[in-house]
Parts: sequence; structure tokens; C-alpha cells
Amino acid sequence: MSDTRDLRVAVLGVGVMGADHVDRINRRISGARVTVISDASAERAAEVGASASDAQLVTDPFEAIAVEDVDAVLLATPSAAHAEQALACVNAGKPVLCEKPLATDAEGALEIARREAELGRRLVQVGFMRRFDHEHERLKSLIDAGELGQPLVMHCVHRNPAVPPRCDSATVIWNSVVHEIDATRYLLGEEIMAITVLRPTPSSHAAEGLQDPQLVILETETGRMVDIEVFVTSGVGYEVRTEVVGERGSAMIGLDVGLVRRTDPGRWGGQITPGFLERFGQAYDSEVQRWVDAVRAGGGSGDCVDGPGAWDGYAAAAVCAAGIRSLETWDRIEVDMVPRSTVDASARVEPEQSE
Amino acid sequence: MSDTRDLRVAVLGVGVMGADHVDRINRRISGARVTVISDASAERAAEVGASASDAQLVTDPFEAIAVEDVDAVLLATPSAAHAEQALACVNAGKPVLCEKPLATDAEGALEIARREAELGRRLVQVGFMRRFDHEHERLKSLIDAGELGQPLVMHCVHRNPAVPPRCDSATVIWNSVVHEIDATRYLLGEEIMAITVLRPTPSSHAAEGLQDPQLVILETETGRMVDIEVFVTSGVGYEVRTEVVGERGSAMIGLDVGLVRRTDPGRWGGQITPGFLERFGQAYDSEVQRWVDAVRAGGGSGDCVDGPGAWDGYAAAAVCAAGIRSLETWDRIEVDMVPRSTVDASARVEPEQSE
Amino acid sequence: MSDTRDLRVAVLGVGVMGADHVDRINRRISGARVTVISDASAERAAEVGASASDAQLVTDPFEAIAVEDVDAVLLATPSAAHAEQALACVNAGKPVLCEKPLATDAEGALEIARREAELGRRLVQVGFMRRFDHEHERLKSLIDAGELGQPLVMHCVHRNPAVPPRCDSATVIWNSVVHEIDATRYLLGEEIMAITVLRPTPSSHAAEGLQDPQLVILETETGRMVDIEVFVTSGVGYEVRTEVVGERGSAMIGLDVGLVRRTDPGRWGGQITPGFLERFGQAYDSEVQRWVDAVRAGGGSGDCVDGPGAWDGYAAAAVCAAGIRSLETWDRIEVDMVPRSTVDASARVEPEQSE
Amino acid sequence: MSDTRDLRVAVLGVGVMGADHVDRINRRISGARVTVISDASAERAAEVGASASDAQLVTDPFEAIAVEDVDAVLLATPSAAHAEQALACVNAGKPVLCEKPLATDAEGALEIARREAELGRRLVQVGFMRRFDHEHERLKSLIDAGELGQPLVMHCVHRNPAVPPRCDSATVIWNSVVHEIDATRYLLGEEIMAITVLRPTPSSHAAEGLQDPQLVILETETGRMVDIEVFVTSGVGYEVRTEVVGERGSAMIGLDVGLVRRTDPGRWGGQITPGFLERFGQAYDSEVQRWVDAVRAGGGSGDCVDGPGAWDGYAAAAVCAAGIRSLETWDRIEVDMVPRSTVDASARVEPEQSE
Repeated sequence: MSDTRDLRVAVLGVGVMGADHVDRINRRISGARVTVISDASAERAAEVGASASDAQLVTDPFEAIAVEDVDAVLLATPSAAHAEQALACVNAGKPVLCEKPLATDAEGALEIARREAELGRRLVQVGFMRRFDHEHERLKSLIDAGELGQPLVMHCVHRNPAVPPRCDSATVIWNSVVHEIDATRYLLGEEIMAITVLRPTPSSHAAEGLQDPQLVILETETGRMVDIEVFVTSGVGYEVRTEVVGERGSAMIGLDVGLVRRTDPGRWGGQITPGFLERFGQAYDSEVQRWVDAVRAGGGSGDCVDGPGAWDGYAAAAVCAAGIRSLETWDRIEVDMVPRSTVDASARVEPEQSE
Repeated sequence: MSDTRDLRVAVLGVGVMGADHVDRINRRISGARVTVISDASAERAAEVGASASDAQLVTDPFEAIAVEDVDAVLLATPSAAHAEQALACVNAGKPVLCEKPLATDAEGALEIARREAELGRRLVQVGFMRRFDHEHERLKSLIDAGELGQPLVMHCVHRNPAVPPRCDSATVIWNSVVHEIDATRYLLGEEIMAITVLRPTPSSHAAEGLQDPQLVILETETGRMVDIEVFVTSGVGYEVRTEVVGERGSAMIGLDVGLVRRTDPGRWGGQITPGFLERFGQAYDSEVQRWVDAVRAGGGSGDCVDGPGAWDGYAAAAVCAAGIRSLETWDRIEVDMVPRSTVDASARVEPEQSE
Repeated sequence: MSDTRDLRVAVLGVGVMGADHVDRINRRISGARVTVISDASAERAAEVGASASDAQLVTDPFEAIAVEDVDAVLLATPSAAHAEQALACVNAGKPVLCEKPLATDAEGALEIARREAELGRRLVQVGFMRRFDHEHERLKSLIDAGELGQPLVMHCVHRNPAVPPRCDSATVIWNSVVHEIDATRYLLGEEIMAITVLRPTPSSHAAEGLQDPQLVILETETGRMVDIEVFVTSGVGYEVRTEVVGERGSAMIGLDVGLVRRTDPGRWGGQITPGFLERFGQAYDSEVQRWVDAVRAGGGSGDCVDGPGAWDGYAAAAVCAAGIRSLETWDRIEVDMVPRSTVDASARVEPEQSE
Repeated sequence: MSDTRDLRVAVLGVGVMGADHVDRINRRISGARVTVISDASAERAAEVGASASDAQLVTDPFEAIAVEDVDAVLLATPSAAHAEQALACVNAGKPVLCEKPLATDAEGALEIARREAELGRRLVQVGFMRRFDHEHERLKSLIDAGELGQPLVMHCVHRNPAVPPRCDSATVIWNSVVHEIDATRYLLGEEIMAITVLRPTPSSHAAEGLQDPQLVILETETGRMVDIEVFVTSGVGYEVRTEVVGERGSAMIGLDVGLVRRTDPGRWGGQITPGFLERFGQAYDSEVQRWVDAVRAGGGSGDCVDGPGAWDGYAAAAVCAAGIRSLETWDRIEVDMVPRSTVDASARVEPEQSE
């Protein structure tokens, strides 16, 4: 694959997220185009494919991965399918950008990380797009420059206006808390050692059996603590707020001030970002553009990742799995992770970061 | 009058503002009590007097000023009555706190300033309460400490939700713009040399004949400029915002952030202060407490002012009068003021300020 | 005591807080004056007394309580002395405004609550001044009006720039967390059933042995949860932030926006309130004014409280005591409180509130 | 030119802005690539060209326009060169995206608008990138949805930290105020009829002869008024703030809140966007992407504009020219514009807007 040819991408799963990625690759970033589209629903695949006239429709995801004029794969299928499909990409030697989570159990994620390490070449990038968000990048820079002193405590808020009816308490951890888990690892630069999931009075707007909100406490290797409010039926908007408190000061992102209006009698205010695409659109664009560049630069034999990799996917999965146990047992659960050196002898000790 | 006896105050005019002053003197500050209440409406006087059982009701304002057990007078009568009543106080040798404006023409204010100067004793304080507001004080300190460098430009916004039906374009200048005129003199520390009143498209919510909003440009002695939006039928709330721009930076007060709510779907925001009593309650309390302390300290022969005085009242009146001419002629009008030394030979050149 | 005579107050303990109360009573509020000052340091008492010329100096606090021309007592002595002195006030039938905490163990507070209940007359008010702060009052109103729906979770931040060298981990709970405990009871209107004190990596600026920051989790009777960051060596400023999250939305106070400056190259921002007197000065004024009014209205036989009372002091003490055990054992501790009906048969079930 | 082939773009002028456009076209948007680079400095052209290996270097701008495999031209040359080069593009039938201003006198801009109208095909787009900025778009939507009622007054602030030494008072109008002129036409949807340039005390940081800050007043056809502070040696940061005040409320953009830090003792705040590329990077990306799409859709015979066109460039130039006269004469100057129908009989009366 020469540097001047566009990267040919298969997009697997074209729901809201996947369809947005198709549009992103074809219209909003450079250097890539979608050549294969795959979805469990042939109707949905055809609908999305209509706007991407060059793309071939392939029903079976594993066939889609194998298509010859596919250089790389973007996985936006349901979470439960990620592990097997990502592993297939690694086995086929094809770079893959896998939406979070990498797997819905720690074992599945670990197998991918191990297989990639055996190959000696980084092929798996995980879609933790906040690492590409300008506000998160600024917060990370502030911490790394030592302007907050040693970080000690972190406060996170993650609210969605609503979730689909089938969403249960465990899904909240695998799909929402997982972002805060990666943000913790990214911002604080160390692994998470324990997790406690607390259960405040549930909202009456949450479906039967859904524990919402949840209050999650993370503890890192060196003893820093993170509290997370995750509330997915808040009814208000999409709100993501992160505050890091260090020895020398604190910093917060996510106050969501943009246009401020003073129209209603006696009221001032603005609009809360309605959803994740609006809030993190720029981050998704940067993530996919940088992944495309990395894959093109990696060519057929080099590393193909510029962002969180398989180990980050595994680490998040291990913490989520412990979170599920905490949710079930009401206890603090210590996170059970294999030492990184047993997966990749050459790995740095700290969490992977964008280079 | 010994230092331990309460100051006996006559309150003239007990509409919204005057009644609030009665409550303030009797319940919210120390060292004073209301001994005389006067109002054109006997019914209103009785109503307010009921909550101030020690106070005597006196219908005629000039008799009220003359009552023997009145040490000082607080004037909250209609603006047009201020000049004559304040002059009566000066002539009776009684300290007076006069709500703004000191007079509704420059001549009336000048006469008071001259008469006071002849007495050689400061008795007249004008109710520019912003000089006692913590945010204004902080902005003033920042400027005086040189942290903005030389001030060059100032932006003011002054909005009321609504005004009484009889309010006309000139009243807006005498009652609302007058605050911005004093704020300019207070914050920038110099006199205003010219005023231009511009007439943007009027709001359809403004009564026939009321120019609203108005856009006012002030020019100071040294050439600094101030733009003022005054909009008294905004329908939204009471909003006062002031930004000073200097050679080394800018500073703004009045953003009105307090409680921030995120309740309505997709909206965040807060409540705009509903009116001037809520916004400047603390300032009124400080103003009256400090005036009471100054009058008690001044005793029967010393100065009885701790705040803007007669000259400040005159300066504001002169600028307002020029503003009215600008409103009528659509022209830039140079302000016509007598030199301060012709009124009071010992006066400092700069605008008076709280000591 | 007639309604027109000033309330005669003894102030016990005239450190920073007590001296400020002396100034408040004599200069900033109406209806009261300080007639007795008492302090362990005769020198300090004389110094503060110099500005309150009418006040008599009495060394022994119990003698000071007993002085005949003392109508009521304001306790600002060290925390450890509160319980015995407050009890002496109750036994002498004198109203007392006791700075928080009411006692430094739950038993001491309970004894006071019981003794007051036996008298059948409320004499004890506790200095939880946030209940008088306008922002807290607005947040309370919003909750009570149902605008947030049922409250589910609350986030609190309490930071001081620094503490005296002798401050230990338990003192942080009795002196700082106690405010959040009362704020929880005030805002959510129910008792706290369990407390967990977590220990994040301590700041290197904290003295040896001081666990700082602490992360505290409260659980209320109905299962609502509160997370509290308390960080008393933050080095930055005095920051108090409270967010309540309900079924229908959230609201936050304490963002501390006032004057916004843009002076340093590339930076905008404002000033953090330097300390509790600046942040809560208005609240202290309202608290003492309303207490004075309540005592004057209560006369010699009625209730003399307008604010948090002895039961509130006991409830806070019981939670603090449980917090100390959590700090020692690293465990979640259930709060051990006697039923309110065993103290006062007529009591409402919910926490006391200002009427 | 088929829809699937990339648009081949010549970039003329590769200073800061032009080089950024080269990078944008080749790396940040899709559907286009740079095939020709031209700059007065051969060295600079070579330097920028090194990162765009496919591009041919052509010294003469008119030759560059004429190169056969150039489908469209992006003009980022010095302002004085725009008119002649844009005209050459029109005459060659090549679509052009011309950085603002379209010309440095009204006549030059008018000639381009006339020539384009004769062709009967829209080829000229002007680089008023704010029309593509999300905050400006949201403000525009709010106005158009009637949520502010009829707009009456608008307040603009435009600050740069510094300007090159050669920048004079007129350049400030042609390069900075021109943005506010177009923002006024875009947001209020009507032409500007008069301009007054006021001269406050100049900053001592402004070079000899540079009037800075300037206070500019615009009046629209229907009498709305706009005040503009333009201050290009503010020393602080790049600050663009716009507030529209209507009959039913107001709205403001540009408060520049993102990451909020509390690190310095006693200070809270954030970072001001350092420059226009950081502030409006997203807007430039959208602008160029949409222009590329429009040119590709227009093919060889249709309109090739999706954004402000030649008439917008002319209108801005006419107001700027009047502004220069106001700057020279200290007077209010009425804007002299030819009726739009004399240029293009089919034109809508209102200002052009993105479709």
C-alpha cells in the first residue's frame, strides 16, 4: 500500500455510530474510503451503503474482514461481538479500530492482547475517543506539566438523557463507566487496583432492575481515588464532567458553556450538548484520522496504532469485570489483572498513550 | 448627640425604596432608628409606619425635616422633589442621604453643592449605592492597583424587565443612565466631557414615545470612551454588567452566576436577579450603615458624608442634562460644568470618592 | 425583657470567629449589644474588648454565663469546651448560639438535647450558618419545590487553603465535614444512616499523620448517597461547592464567579473567596440577626431558636463520631442514633429546619 | 470532473494562513488535494511544498491560476492582491475561495461582483469563516427562530494580543473590523447603512500612529445598532465575543470557558484561545470542505459557492471604505452602495447566506 493511495476500510456494524463513521471516513477526513459495509440487517446495510456508492455490501462480518481490497477494519458492531471480530482481524494481520469495549469480559480482551504481542506488531486500537478530545488533551497536558502537583482525587460525572429499554446495570458499566475507567488511566497514568459500585436510591425513571444512578469509586495503584456518578436516565442531556484535584490545585472540564442566552423571564443559561456525537464529534474525527494515518504509515509490517491499544482495552475490561462483581456483591472488589510483562515483555509499565 | 445614642432618622417618601430603607434602618443595620416618616400618601405612611412603631407620621416633608428629634434625613421622595428637599436639609444643618438623582436639572444640583460649600461642612450624600457593592469595589481596586493598566474603554449594560407606563425617554436617563454616569466617574476617576445618545430601533414592547433601548456614548476628560446599552423593557430581568478594558487587560462584573441548574431537557442555567433590591441589597445596607456612622462621627459640626457627595450629584446631573439634549437633537453634546474650584476652593480636582 | 430594649449578649471565646461576632453584634446587625466578653487569654479579651467599650471582661466562662445583665450567650470557644458550656446555658435558662460542633462526642450533644427537651423550651441554636446563606437557601427552595424531582445523589467539595499545624484527621471531620453533614440533613431533609471515610493518597503538603484529602461517603435513611471531598491543605483558596442530582435534573452552587479578569497573557479568571468569613459573612449576619430576633421574641419563657437546634447538633455529632470510627477502621460504619421520640416526644420526625 | 476524482486546488500565498490551508486540504478534509502552490517567496513556497509532495511550484500567481490541472483556486495572498487575482479566476472560469477582504476598495469588489453576474454563475466565495463556526451558527439559528424577538442592538468585542509593526489604523478596519461587518450582515440579515469610528485614548502599547482601540458604531437599514470594540494590541489573547439583544432577550457567544483551573493561590480561571487558528480551526475546516463539495457539485457549469459570495465581499468592502473615511474625518459616514439589482437582476434583496 503506497502512501498516496487511500486506505480501504471495512466498517462492520452500521448503527448510529457505524453510520457516522462511514460518513466520517468518506466525507470528513482524508486518506481513507469505505470499501466494505457489513451489518446484521441487510436493509440497514443497504440504506447506509446508498450514501457510500463505492462500498460493497458483505453480510458476514468475518467474510468482510477477509475481503482482499480491505486494508483495515473499523468495528462498530454490538459490544458482545467485538472480541471475536477483533481477534479475527489480528489473525488476518489487518489493523482494526474497535469501538469500546474491546471485549465484554477480561479474558476475551486478554486473548487479543496476547495474540497481538505474539505477532510483535500493534494492530488493535480501541475507540476511547476522549483521548482525542481537545479539552481532555488540555487537562492531560496540565497534569503532565505538573501544574496541579501530584493528582490525588478525581471527580467524574457521566449523564445520558435516556437509554434503550434493554439497558441493564451491567451494560451501564461496560458501555458508560468504561469511558471513565479509561479516562482515569489516561489522565492519571496508572492502573486501577480496586472498584466499588455503590447503589444510591434509584431514579423512578429507570426501568425495573436498572440500578441508576450508580456511584463508582476507583482506587489506583498508588492510592489515588476517583468518584464517578453515572446516571443514564437523567432526562436532561449528555453531560460529561471531569475534575482532577492535585496537591497544588484542581482543574475541571465539561462545564459546557457556549452560547449563553437570557431570554426567558428571569432565566439565563445555555444548551446542554444533546448527545455524544455532538460533544465528541471532533474527537471522533481526530481519532479516525490519526488511526488512518498510522495504518498508512505502518504499511504491511509496522505498528498500526496511534491511540489506546489492546492493553488499554484489556485493562478497561478487567476493571469493568470487577465492577460487575461489585455491583452484584455490594462489596469493594480488587481488580485482577495479569502483569503486563507476561503479555508483552517489551511493554512500558505505564498505560499506553498516544505517541 | 453622643456616640452611644442611636441616630434619629426621618425617612421622606416611603414607596418601595423608602419602605425598604425604613426596614433597613430599624432591622438590618445598627446605630440608627427611624423617628419620623413622611409621605404624600397618608395611607401609605401609616402602612409603613405600622412596622416602625416608634416613628411619628408627619405629612409635610419640610416639617418632617424640621422636627427636633430628627438628627438626619433620608430622602426617597420622587426625583423631582429631591433638590428642594435636600436644600432644606442643608439649610437646616441636617445631614441628608438623598436617593439619586440629586436634582433633575444641573442648576438645582449646583445650588446645593454651592450652599454646602458655603457652610464649609459636608452634609449631602447621594445614593449611588454601587460604590458600596462588593463587585464594584473589587473592580475599582483592580483598576486602582494598576492591574488593567490605563483604562481605555468601558462597556456597560443596564437592563430592567419593565418600567411603569409613565416612564419616558428622559426619565430613563435621569433614573437609569445616571447610575452608569456615576459608575464611570467612580471607576475611571475623572469627569465626563461629552455624551451622545443614539437611538436604535425601539422595542415594540416599549410604550409609544419611549426610546428603548438607548445606546449612550460617554467621553471622559482624557478621552476614554464608555458605551452603555440601557434597555428598560427587556422583559427578562434586572441585568447590570460592567467591563473595563485597559492597556494590560480587562475585567467584567455582573455575570450573575450563582445557582446553576440543569433541569429542563437540554438546558442549563440560572436565575437572573429579579430586581435592584435583590442585586444591590448588600450595597444599600453598607451605604446606609456607613452614612449613619459618618453622621454620628460628624456630630453637630463635622462632615457627615462617607460616599458620593453633592459634587458627585451635580456632575451626574450635568451629564444627564447634556444627555437629554443629545436625545432631543440626535447630536453629540459637550457637557457644560462649572469648574469645581468655583464651588469649593479646597476641593480636590478628581471626583469625590468614599474615604 | 421588652421588645425595644437591646438583647444583652455574652460572647465566650474571642478568637477570629468570636471577635467577628462581637463586631457583628455591635456594628452590623440591630437589636443586640455585647455586654460580656470572655476568653481564656485575658490579653486577647482586653484587645477585643477595647473595640466594644460597653462590654465587661469576665475570665471564667461559667461566671460569664451567669452575669445578670446577660440575656443570651454566643459560644465561640474551642470545640472541646462547647458541650459543657452549652449545657450550663441551658441549665441557667439562657438562650445560646453555639458555634459548630455542639459537642465533640455524640453523648455530650445528646445530653444537651435531652436536657432542653425536659425544659420544654428550645434554647440551643447551633452555628450551621450555611442554612442562612442565600445560595444554599435557593438550592433548598429548588429541591423543596420539586424542580429537581426526588434527590438521589449529592456531590460536595470543601477545600481550605491551609490549617493550623495541630489539625489532625479527626479534627477535619469535627470541624469541616460537620458542615457537609448538616448541609446533607438540611438539603435532603432526612437523617444519615452510614458513613465511610476513604483515604486517597495524602498530599505531601499535609502534616505528618494528617489524612488529607479525605473522601467521605454518606448514606441517608432512604438510600440517597453523598460524596464529599474534604481537602484542608489545598493551597489554593476556600472553596465550597454543592451539587444535588435528582430524578429530573441537577443544580450546583459555589462556582464562585464574580469579577472575571482577563489580564495575564492567555489567561482569564477570577479570585477564589479567600476564607469562610468572606464567603459566608452574609450568612453569619443573617444567622445572628435572626437568632437575636428569636430570643427577643421568645422572651423569658418561649422558644429562643430560629435555625438548627440541639437535635441538629446531636445528629451531626453522631455522624461525626461514626466518621471517626470509619477513619480508624477503614470500614463503612452505620450511624448509631437514639430515636428522636426518646428525646422529645413531640418532635417532628424530620431534621429541624428554620421556620 | 467526475464526482469521485479529487478536486485539484491551487493555493496562492502560503504564509501562516495559506500554509494552514494546504495542510487542511491535504490532511484534514476529504475530496481535494493541492496541485499548485504559489508564493512571492520561492523559498517559502518550497518549504510549504515539501510537505505537499504532489504540488507543483509556480511563482507567478496568474500562471498558477491558469495551470491546466487546477480546478479551483484558494487565495491567501496579501489583501491588496486579492481583487486582481480573484478577477483573474472569474475570467478564467475557475472557482475561487478568497480570504477576506475580497478587495481593499469598494470598486474592486464591485467589479468582481459585476463580472461574476455577467457570467451568470457563482464562482467567488469569500473567507468569512465565522459563518461556519458552530457558536455563530447556533446564535444565527436562535435569532432566525425568533427566540430573541426582533434584534435591536449588538455588542462585539474583537481583541488580538498583538499585530505586526506595519499594521496601521486602516488595516485594522480592513482586516479585523471586516469580520464584525460580515457578522452583522450574517446575523442580522440586512445591509449596513452608516458607520462611525470613534477614537478612545490609544493604548501606549500601540505603535505611533495606530489608533487602538477603536470603537465602531454600525447602523443597519432598519435602524439596528452595533457597537464594536476592536483592540489589536491588547496583550492578553485572541478574544471574540458577540452579544445580540432583541425584544425578547439576549444571547452571547465567545465566553471562552473550557478547562477551568484553580491552581494559583486565590485564583481560578482558564486559558484564552491564543489565536484565530485555534479559535476558528473547526470553522476553517468546515468552510473549505463545503466549498470543495460545492465546486465538485457545480462541475464545469454550475454555481461553485456554498457560503458568502462576491456580493458579501462587496458589501463588506463598501462598509470598510466608509469606515476609513470616518476614521479620517471623525464623522459618521453613510455607506455608499449600488443597489444589488444593478449588479444581479435575479438577486435576492437580503445578504447572501449559506444555503
